[in-house]
This record gives sequence, C-alpha cells and structure tokens, in this order.
Amino acid sequence: MNWAPVIERYENELTQNVIPFWREHCVDREFGGYFTMLDRDGSVYDTTKYMWMQWRVVYMFAELSRGRFGEGHPEYLQLAKDGFEFLYRHGRTEDGSYYFALNRKGVPAAAPHSIFSDCFAAMGAAALFAAAGEERYREEARSAMHSYIRRLDNPKGKWNKLLPGTPTRLNLGSYMILANLGSVMKECLGSDEFDAETDRAVRTVMRMFHHPELKVIFENVNPDGSFDLESCEGRFVNPGHGLESMWFVLQYAERIGDEALIRQAAGFIDELFRFGTDPRYGGIFYFMDALGRPHLELQHDMKLWWPHNEAAIASLYAFKLTGEERFLNHFRTVDEWMWSHFPDPEYGEWFGYLDRRGEANNLLKGGKWKGFFHLPRCLVKCADLMRAISR
Amino acid sequence: MNWAPVIERYENELTQNVIPFWREHCVDREFGGYFTMLDRDGSVYDTTKYMWMQWRVVYMFAELSRGRFGEGHPEYLQLAKDGFEFLYRHGRTEDGSYYFALNRKGVPAAAPHSIFSDCFAAMGAAALFAAAGEERYREEARSAMHSYIRRLDNPKGKWNKLLPGTPTRLNLGSYMILANLGSVMKECLGSDEFDAETDRAVRTVMRMFHHPELKVIFENVNPDGSFDLESCEGRFVNPGHGLESMWFVLQYAERIGDEALIRQAAGFIDELFRFGTDPRYGGIFYFMDALGRPHLELQHDMKLWWPHNEAAIASLYAFKLTGEERFLNHFRTVDEWMWSHFPDPEYGEWFGYLDRRGEANNLLKGGKWKGFFHLPRCLVKCADLMRAISR
Repeated sequence: MNWAPVIERYENELTQNVIPFWREHCVDREFGGYFTMLDRDGSVYDTTKYMWMQWRVVYMFAELSRGRFGEGHPEYLQLAKDGFEFLYRHGRTEDGSYYFALNRKGVPAAAPHSIFSDCFAAMGAAALFAAAGEERYREEARSAMHSYIRRLDNPKGKWNKLLPGTPTRLNLGSYMILANLGSVMKECLGSDEFDAETDRAVRTVMRMFHHPELKVIFENVNPDGSFDLESCEGRFVNPGHGLESMWFVLQYAERIGDEALIRQAAGFIDELFRFGTDPRYGGIFYFMDALGRPHLELQHDMKLWWPHNEAAIASLYAFKLTGEERFLNHFRTVDEWMWSHFPDPEYGEWFGYLDRRGEANNLLKGGKWKGFFHLPRCLVKCADLMRAISR
Repeated sequence: MNWAPVIERYENELTQNVIPFWREHCVDREFGGYFTMLDRDGSVYDTTKYMWMQWRVVYMFAELSRGRFGEGHPEYLQLAKDGFEFLYRHGRTEDGSYYFALNRKGVPAAAPHSIFSDCFAAMGAAALFAAAGEERYREEARSAMHSYIRRLDNPKGKWNKLLPGTPTRLNLGSYMILANLGSVMKECLGSDEFDAETDRAVRTVMRMFHHPELKVIFENVNPDGSFDLESCEGRFVNPGHGLESMWFVLQYAERIGDEALIRQAAGFIDELFRFGTDPRYGGIFYFMDALGRPHLELQHDMKLWWPHNEAAIASLYAFKLTGEERFLNHFRTVDEWMWSHFPDPEYGEWFGYLDRRGEANNLLKGGKWKGFFHLPRCLVKCADLMRAISR
C-alpha cells in the first residue's frame, strides 16, 4: 500500500483544518480558559467551561507544541499554559479534585462528581510538563493522578444515587483510562511511579471485561468477573470504547514487549469491528446491547465521530504490531467511512453526530462532550502509525 | 366532521390493543409490582422497578377501573391495589418521599432524587381512592402531594450537583405537573386542599414561561421572569411538554370558567404546533433550541410517541373550548401522523422512539421512560373530548 498520500491527508487535515478552527475560535481572551461550545461556523453558543473539555485543550495544545506539525509551536505552548493558569486557579477543589464545570468567569458551576475531570487534568498537566519542563506542571499532574486513583473505589462519591438494590459493577471506563493515563505519565513525566497501577489496569481490562462466547468487550461486569445478562446495564456494549481501550493496551504491550498481550488485544479489536459495524449503513454503532435487546439510550444507533477516530487508531496499531491483513482491511473500511461522512466541507472541522444513515443531525463542532481531542489525537496517532508502518 | 369512526378507533385501540398488552405482560406475580421494561413482543428485558413507571401503572389501572372501557373493571382495580401494596411497602422513604427505583424484589436501587416519583405516587394513590374509596389511599395521596410541594424549592436535594456558577432557574416541569396534580386531587379526592397551589402553578406557567416575541414556551426561565438566550439551558424548548402543560391549563380554565385563560392557552397551543412541527418529515420534534442553535441532547430531532399523544389531547381540548377550525386542523395533522407511524402492526401497542424520518430505531414497548401512561391516557382523553365535541 502506498501510504504517502494517506499520511499527507491526515497531516493536512490536522494542520490546515482542525488546528486552525480551534485556535481561531476556542480561546477566551477576556476571562481565560476556552470556549468549547462551538457551532458549525465556530461561533460560541454557550460559555460553560466543562472540565473534561478544558483540560483536553490544554493537553492537545501542549502535545502539539512538542511535535512537528506546522508553525506556531511557541503559540500552542502559550495557549496551553494560559489554560492551565485559569484551570489551576478556578477549577481545583480543596482536596485536589476538579469541579465538573465552571461558568465563563471561573465560578464553579457543577460539583466535582466525575473522576474523569481529574483524569484529563492529569493528562493536560503532564503534557505541559513534557513541553515546558516547569516543575509545577509535574506536581499538578501527580496530584491529579493521585486524586484519580484515590477516587477509583467510589468514583461518584456523595453524588452516587445508587443503593444496595443496584448490584455493584466494575466499569470499563475507569480501568481503560488508567491504562492510557499510565502511558501518558510514563512518557511525559519519565517516572516509574504509576507502572504498577498501569499494569494492574491493563490486566483487569483483559481478564474481566471480555465475554469469550459473545466475543465482545462489556462496559460493566460483576466484581467476581461474571457477566449479568439479565439487565440493560449488564449487557451494555460500547464498541468505540472497547476499540479505544484496546489500542491503549497495544500501546502498553508494545512498550513492555508482551507478544501474547498484543495477540490478545488485536484479536479483541477484530471482534469489536465485527460486532460494532452497522451491516445496513456502515459505520460503527454508538451503544449496543450484547444480546440485541432494547437499549435505553435513544441515541444508541447514531454514528459518532470519536468511535470512528478510535477505530482508525486501533486498526492501524494492530496492523503495525501484527502485520495481519485483516487489520489493514478494517482500517481501510473505517478510513473510507469516516472521511466520507464526518468532515464539514463548508466550515471546516468535522461533524460529531450523524444519524444511523450517516446524515448529520447536529451541526455543532464542539459541545459538552465534543472538543479538541479525539479528532486531532486520531490524526496525529494515525499519521505516526502509518509512518512507522511504511518504514 | 363525522366523529363516530374516530372515537371508535381510539376506544378500540385502548380496549383491544393497549390494555391487553400491559395486562398480559406487566404484572410481576412473583414479587409484586410491575414489569415495565418490555421488549417489542412484551418479553421482559430488565426487572428494575422505576417509581415513575410503577405508580403510573397504578394510576392507569385505577382510572380504567372507574371507566366504561370493556370488561374486567374489578380486575383492573385489583391490579392497581396489588401494585399499591408493593410500592407502599417498599417504595417509601422515612420522610414520605419515594425512591427513584427498586430492584425486582423491592430493595431500594436508586435514591429518592426525583420529586416526580412523589408526583406519580400522589396521582396513583388518588385515583385508587376514587376507585376503591379506602381512606388509606387518600392519606397516601395527600402525603405524597405534601412531599412534592415541600420539595419544590429544592427538587434534587442533596443530589443537586449545581453550584453558584450555574444560574438558578425555574423549571416548567415542576409547575405544569402541579397544575395537573391539582386537577387530579380535586377530581379524585373532592377537596379544596390544593386549590391555591394549583392556581398559583397555572398562573406561574402562563406568566413566566412564554416568550412573547419568539412565541414559544420555554423549559427554563430566570426567577425574575426574564429569559436567558445565551445558554443551552436557557434556550431549551420541549414542544410536547409545552403542549401537555397547555391542556392541563385548559382543563383548569374550563373548571373555573376562565375564558381569558382559555383563549391564552389555546393561542399558545397554536404557536407550539407551528414551532415544534418538523417541516421536512412531519411530526413533532422532541427537543429544540429557541434560536436554532445546537441542542446538546443527541436525540433532539427524534419523534417520540408522547409529544404526539399530548398534542392530540391539546388540539382537541382547544377545539372543544374555542370551536376554532385551526385546532381541528392541528388535530387532524397529528392524528394522521401518529397513527401512521407509531402503532406496531405485528405485536401490538405502539413504538415509542422513531428517528426524524419516522422509522422506529428502538422497538421497546416499555422502558425507563415509556410505560402504561401517555398512550392510554391519550386514547381515553381524546375519546372523551371527541364525544363531548360531537354532542
């Protein structure tokens, strides 16, 4: 396969389309932090500052400032630093966790009920340390990591609404993110501090969440590793989440040189592509039920940008590490589908939310859950992987 | 217009399709309470007992046992009484509010974080009192009503995640439901106890939630009655909710004989039909943004059964009270659209969730938010209204 034009397509999209869109529209020069609720044309339709989205912008500009993508590295670094100052000043609670949202001026607007706020703070601060080398960024990354790990046993804390009548579950998200966080910390901070946690998270994901007969990764399992096929929660499958977690595992397995783990994760990626692909209109479903029973979320059959971004990374990663043709085919399929459906030819960037048929039903470029993260990360990682493959 | 065949269509759907489906599938004869998570064919796909759905079944069977619909009134009454016993024994908290969910056996599964659990408990118990005359049902209805009213100032209590950076809003739901609750209490308990609250709720809805220039009812307004057009929450419009609240107001206005209120509510109904109808595929949108900016809920453009049910009632009610042709036309439009899209010809009952084009994307008959309530209430109320109109 001739990779050069594909690499060029991914890099150009990043440098000539996605970065310029966010650089132009997302910076709040009056109050600090970022606007992430951006309409199709980049105009701001809400000024709430959601912590996941804010820290992801810090992370992405810091990462880009370290890289080789176009001009403006000092500018990216400054954008990341400015965001950090706003979030460090306003976003932190007394115990070092992070509020879920601030208003435009930085007044806390939603309680610190999500440990993923801490997760993305850790990623953002770590990337900033790697880019700028200032000790306070490393300290904040370590502090946020410790907050994340401390909260893992009871992620929602006092905002947990569940009572004893709801079974306790292990949730894929908490573990798969830790597998990636560990890699980010290793790479950005260069320390062994989180190696044991990372290994434990990776092993937990691989040992407990994969259903061997149904051949798919579950979102929620019983603490003893059994599966609950009687409830909606127990049968919940999120193929994009599974694919994302599997490239986190491949990343880890590659680093430690674990061939068996590579083979296992690659196998799960193949299964997830088979399970999650819509046979009627193509693309990857958002949410599914492991047994095909009704899904309670109305948007279950929609096609979102990020599962496709993660699927592209996962398939390329598996192809790079195994050389097996089936992963190249998966990449070709998802590459074709996402590039022909998500990019907005008129105003740039990508649509995030398509109906099952592939038609955009919401034209926003940024929202409560879509920001400057999955798409640029996909473009960077895929370009890197393709370059490695073509060597 | 010849109403007889339309009345017959609504009554037959109730007695020969909807009631039999629920009577056959929803009763948990082993543990008590009801199954409401019913797949297309009526099979149970989750046994969680959500309080809104449970009490709505009590309400509906109690109401039907009072009526003239087919045989089996004593059976309906017994089904409602049995549900009451289960919910009274397991669903109540110490302070008289209701848990959000129980597991199948009745163990509390989700905290009492929704005041609408109390609302539907009040409706269910009141209807049961009207049907059976036992004092304990009246006491429970009054207790749940007082719990609802007591919680109105801080509906989410300690589960509220919002902090001072989020503006305080008045929410349409709390007031519009109170307008209906007041009517149900008046009719079922025959007392004046809640008249003042009812009147205050109706006046609040009419005075504060309608935007005179945009000509639509908002979901959230500022406490001073102004509108926030800068945020997603401030611009949130739910046309079906608005239509439902307007027939609650018409019901109240008819009872007290307030002609001006009738004209005002009817005018708002006309506006909501214009604002909420999809010009491309017909039907009524689920969620909208008052200014056409992006909506954060991915399912915003879907077509749900209940807004259409409420729209049918609202248009008939307005036609009955004003005699204006425009409301007959609205009824004809929504009647045609909902009957040609929602009924399931194969397994009975109606689909709840269609995509924008009108194709079912989820085949469940009952779920966390769909139960034995909007559809049978629509069939009963519309048949009643048409009979009154045709006289």
